[in-house]
Amino acid sequence: MGPKIVFIGAGSARWTSRILADIFLNEDLRDSEIWLMDIDDYRLNLISTLARRYVKELKIPMEVHATKDRAEAIKGADFVISTALPKGYMYYEKMRDASEEHGYYRGINSVEWNYVGDYHTIWGYYLFKLYMEIARDIEDFAPDAWFFIVSNPVLELTTMIGRETKVNVAGICHGFLGYRSVIEVLAMRLAKEKFGKNIIPHCATHRAECYDELRRIINLEDVEVEMKGLNHVIWLTKFEYKGEDAYKYLDNWIKEDAEEYWSVWREHTMSPWDLDLCPAAIDMYKTYGYLPIGDSVRGGTWKYHWDLRTKQYWYGPYGGPDSEIGCAIRILQVRRRIEEIARMAFDRSRPISQSMPLKPSGEVIVTLMDSLYNGKPADSYEISFLSGQVRAPIYVNILNNGTISNLPDDIAVETHVRVDSSGIHPISRGTIPDKLYKYVMLPRITRAEWALEANLRGGRDTLFQWLIVDVRTRNMKQIDDVINAILELPENKEMAKHFS
Amino acid sequence: MGPKIVFIGAGSARWTSRILADIFLNEDLRDSEIWLMDIDDYRLNLISTLARRYVKELKIPMEVHATKDRAEAIKGADFVISTALPKGYMYYEKMRDASEEHGYYRGINSVEWNYVGDYHTIWGYYLFKLYMEIARDIEDFAPDAWFFIVSNPVLELTTMIGRETKVNVAGICHGFLGYRSVIEVLAMRLAKEKFGKNIIPHCATHRAECYDELRRIINLEDVEVEMKGLNHVIWLTKFEYKGEDAYKYLDNWIKEDAEEYWSVWREHTMSPWDLDLCPAAIDMYKTYGYLPIGDSVRGGTWKYHWDLRTKQYWYGPYGGPDSEIGCAIRILQVRRRIEEIARMAFDRSRPISQSMPLKPSGEVIVTLMDSLYNGKPADSYEISFLSGQVRAPIYVNILNNGTISNLPDDIAVETHVRVDSSGIHPISRGTIPDKLYKYVMLPRITRAEWALEANLRGGRDTLFQWLIVDVRTRNMKQIDDVINAILELPENKEMAKHFS
Repeated sequence: MGPKIVFIGAGSARWTSRILADIFLNEDLRDSEIWLMDIDDYRLNLISTLARRYVKELKIPMEVHATKDRAEAIKGADFVISTALPKGYMYYEKMRDASEEHGYYRGINSVEWNYVGDYHTIWGYYLFKLYMEIARDIEDFAPDAWFFIVSNPVLELTTMIGRETKVNVAGICHGFLGYRSVIEVLAMRLAKEKFGKNIIPHCATHRAECYDELRRIINLEDVEVEMKGLNHVIWLTKFEYKGEDAYKYLDNWIKEDAEEYWSVWREHTMSPWDLDLCPAAIDMYKTYGYLPIGDSVRGGTWKYHWDLRTKQYWYGPYGGPDSEIGCAIRILQVRRRIEEIARMAFDRSRPISQSMPLKPSGEVIVTLMDSLYNGKPADSYEISFLSGQVRAPIYVNILNNGTISNLPDDIAVETHVRVDSSGIHPISRGTIPDKLYKYVMLPRITRAEWALEANLRGGRDTLFQWLIVDVRTRNMKQIDDVINAILELPENKEMAKHFS
Repeated sequence: MGPKIVFIGAGSARWTSRILADIFLNEDLRDSEIWLMDIDDYRLNLISTLARRYVKELKIPMEVHATKDRAEAIKGADFVISTALPKGYMYYEKMRDASEEHGYYRGINSVEWNYVGDYHTIWGYYLFKLYMEIARDIEDFAPDAWFFIVSNPVLELTTMIGRETKVNVAGICHGFLGYRSVIEVLAMRLAKEKFGKNIIPHCATHRAECYDELRRIINLEDVEVEMKGLNHVIWLTKFEYKGEDAYKYLDNWIKEDAEEYWSVWREHTMSPWDLDLCPAAIDMYKTYGYLPIGDSVRGGTWKYHWDLRTKQYWYGPYGGPDSEIGCAIRILQVRRRIEEIARMAFDRSRPISQSMPLKPSGEVIVTLMDSLYNGKPADSYEISFLSGQVRAPIYVNILNNGTISNLPDDIAVETHVRVDSSGIHPISRGTIPDKLYKYVMLPRITRAEWALEANLRGGRDTLFQWLIVDVRTRNMKQIDDVINAILELPENKEMAKHFS
């Protein structure tokens, strides 16, 4: 019998189905016991229908259980994976609307180093509460289980569970994979310098020609990268090619190629998330000395986020995923994807394994389970990447405890780890560079602490403290007004008590 | 031969004369060699005239030297005490004016947890530079000397010298003595509870009746206090009476007596600095769980400082020393005091020891020198206090290095110390309470780091980063405008280069 793997909020069907695919494809996890838990009947039916059809069609010897009872699901689990988002994403849009009516553009949740539209910190009361409840269930019913937190805010939730409970916890985010962008920069530069070839337009449009050329020119073994920081504020602190500092390639790219790249990119980009080398990323590199990786690009200060026009200047035509445009596109995509999966799951005229063939997700989570459960040590995993199979380092979020010596011990850091049957162990140690510490880590940690205080301890003043330092605050009455507007939403009755 | 004691910026005549009085009165320091250094001829003449008249009249066997040559003064020194403020206090008022013209009320230097009008951080370029130069002189010419920093910003300057140089450094501030206010609270409560006596009006006006009663009711040995924090953000973390937590007396005072106290105080207060128990102090206690001590009351967030009316609500009729009113009063007092000292120093018709009789200053600095130089261990010193002589604990600012375990090692903390010939040693260890850590220490340390980065490393962006999170910033142009306005002041030619 294999591990008991529990999905909380399993109705996040796209994500769950991608991880299920990884499990189905892993020879050593095919005898797992899968528990799908969600409070929404329709969504639970959708994901369990999907899972059971695969199992049946592909003759996988796996039990699939569906339940609305969280404790039952968690009981005796080896792994608990949660993507649960209580009250749904539109609830947060209501709070954003209420905020904007009182002068807080993009909502009171959007502040320095966290402008990500669905990274709910200060207004995440129900979310923080649910994760504490899940963790308490794990303490009671599966004390040895690993709890993988996939829901944002990964930084705050992982820190909270790590501090407040005895649960084995790791926060999961694939943002760190954004480091591939500097390898593309390297390819663009080497193609030009060595072969007089301009692949910038291919790379700016993410065409196969870029990646093919990249793999012809670069042996990925010659590239060494290391990222340091917190979830969504993680930076490329090491970038070497053939043993030498390779940031010089980025410097030359900025000088000679960036304008061309951006002009093609502005003309063709098809996704608000297509930001790895956008003007904001490069400006942050110039300002803080290191390239921001993955979703970190979406952070920064109000310099990049003042209004839609500012966002479009720094993040391209959609203003990034966190502008009013990008946010609407995100919602539209979520809806379309669920619709699409539902169509296939319930269309019994075609085998599900044909309409949605299993393919690796690129997520790290199944490697973690395989390593922990089956005792296979790993510090990297194979993913499809740059038009081929490559090994990527395993990065997860765990409590710092000295990994980055100039950050507090009890904050979750996103770090390269080695995983084996005894647990998850950070590999890279050291310090976060001075400028990042001062201008990124300190403000971000401050906000994380304030969000935790607000959601765990409550009291109206914890909201006031959040807003009295907000650049959008024009007067004291505005603070009271926006707090009232948010707490008076019908959904926020309980939350209003917490903050009274 | 006794120690060589050097005053840099000795022309801060009132302060220097008070410390000289302590030296003259200390039997074991009467053979000191005094060096007075200032770049201003008039001020140097003033303080050296004063010092030499005392020495002559009182037949003190002390050499008094006056010089404009800093290196000469420092050479072979045992103690270097600096109150130097390059360009004078009116220079900073010009920057405040330029800021206010661009919408930054009280100047860009005034931000969360530092609203003190003469605590110059972000715009202290010349000040930070001078202190580095003094420290380099000490490294070169008096490597074993102790450097006592009396000039604000004590937090930033002490941290800077501690980090960047090899000099023995301590930051000196008497703000911690503000803890007496809770002893007055204790007296008001005990007088009422035990003897049915109302001494609130006496205490609100700081009349002798209050202190006489206090000493009748309370044996000061029964009171134990401890403060924790950084300079100007230090909090009463322990307050015990007869071995029991005494914060309950403050709670009852707030419930039953505060209104009466405030009403008398508002009617009679004669000083903008009379703030130990003002409404802001009590509101901070309610918000953060501990009473702010000394100048810490002047901190807080914009909640207390939004405009003059807000300041007057929280700090009384003058709006505290940092309002436009209080600031003008401060300048007036500085001018009057210098004028007064000059009158006496140059009036040879009366012995100076009669017109300005020597009396102890209440400052800790001479105790430090006596302990360090003469090997007399001490963790407290005698001061006139509450209408009598009491022993107060010695608090100074030194690099943390684990004293407060949840603060970074390389930030200067204000802490109780024991002093002996081997150095200055922190006594009280432990952690800063959670809420203070989150809402006070993190934001204050962030600003300290930003000020150090700006003044040590420069670059226009270090000013931009300061302002992009400022609640007074209304648009991006305003940031550029205020930076330009400040850097275009004729005095700021060099500073403008540093920040270009």
